[in-house]
Amino acid sequence: MRVLGIDPGIAITGYGLVEEREGSLEALAYGDIRTPAGDPLPQRLRQLYEAICSLIEAHRPDVAAIERVFFGRNVTTAFAVGQARGVALLALAQAEIPIYEYTPADVKQALVGYGSAPKAQIQAMVRMLLHLPEIPRPDDVADALAVAICHLNHARLAALR
Amino acid sequence: MRVLGIDPGIAITGYGLVEEREGSLEALAYGDIRTPAGDPLPQRLRQLYEAICSLIEAHRPDVAAIERVFFGRNVTTAFAVGQARGVALLALAQAEIPIYEYTPADVKQALVGYGSAPKAQIQAMVRMLLHLPEIPRPDDVADALAVAICHLNHARLAALR
Repeated sequence: MRVLGIDPGIAITGYGLVEEREGSLEALAYGDIRTPAGDPLPQRLRQLYEAICSLIEAHRPDVAAIERVFFGRNVTTAFAVGQARGVALLALAQAEIPIYEYTPADVKQALVGYGSAPKAQIQAMVRMLLHLPEIPRPDDVADALAVAICHLNHARLAALR
Repeated sequence: MRVLGIDPGIAITGYGLVEEREGSLEALAYGDIRTPAGDPLPQRLRQLYEAICSLIEAHRPDVAAIERVFFGRNVTTAFAVGQARGVALLALAQAEIPIYEYTPADVKQALVGYGSAPKAQIQAMVRMLLHLPEIPRPDDVADALAVAICHLNHARLAALR
């Protein structure tokens, strides 16, 4: 099973494709999609959408995993992220890729065994589980890989039950 | 000039196509796009996107007008509306339709001459200016028509200057 983890944002969208092979995890591709701050929002959304469509086309993920985000009181951020996320979900829906949502606590629980682990610990675990030379940067990329790993863990547990 | 006013939302998106002909405004089409509450969010976004693409295809607007929304403290609403709005802006950007944003105060100012007019007064003005038999319902449709009228007013004033 090939999972596309995605952490959408207008300025930076992190992504990571993770596959489980003989019990070991492999990062097939990861990186970020950036859109220029000077461009009008509709153009940035279009660039983001096209980049996600290209990723799907190139890597043919079986499923996608995305974090269910919480914004506290930051309405402006929620609105901006919402717009990017809408476009990402659309691209996945059009490609008929099932989308699984996980809370930040789900992701932490799956990676390090408890839901309140610090970010640095999650990132170190992402690096280790995927045998990467270093922690992927920026955070959005590590987050996208983490949610993909979380989905693979959930799928493995579901298969065992 | 044919203006597509749009008021995006996941459950209900209002739209209105308004044209100015010999100094008089005409509503060419208006209504709402609804997506079923029971469907998964990515499917609802896809339905919304496809409906907007169909509208653009059918009516070929020259420009689009959309309200710049403020959510106060409602983060959940901001996030949900953001997702719908992202998909709407994407469809417009792909069709290379210029998008103009107006604040709620701009819309009120354009329709009734002052920025703090009550909603009912705006709606009555929409009905009157467009020679409609009654106020369009739900509010999302009246709001979409109002922002389209606002754009036509701004364009007329800009042409005069």
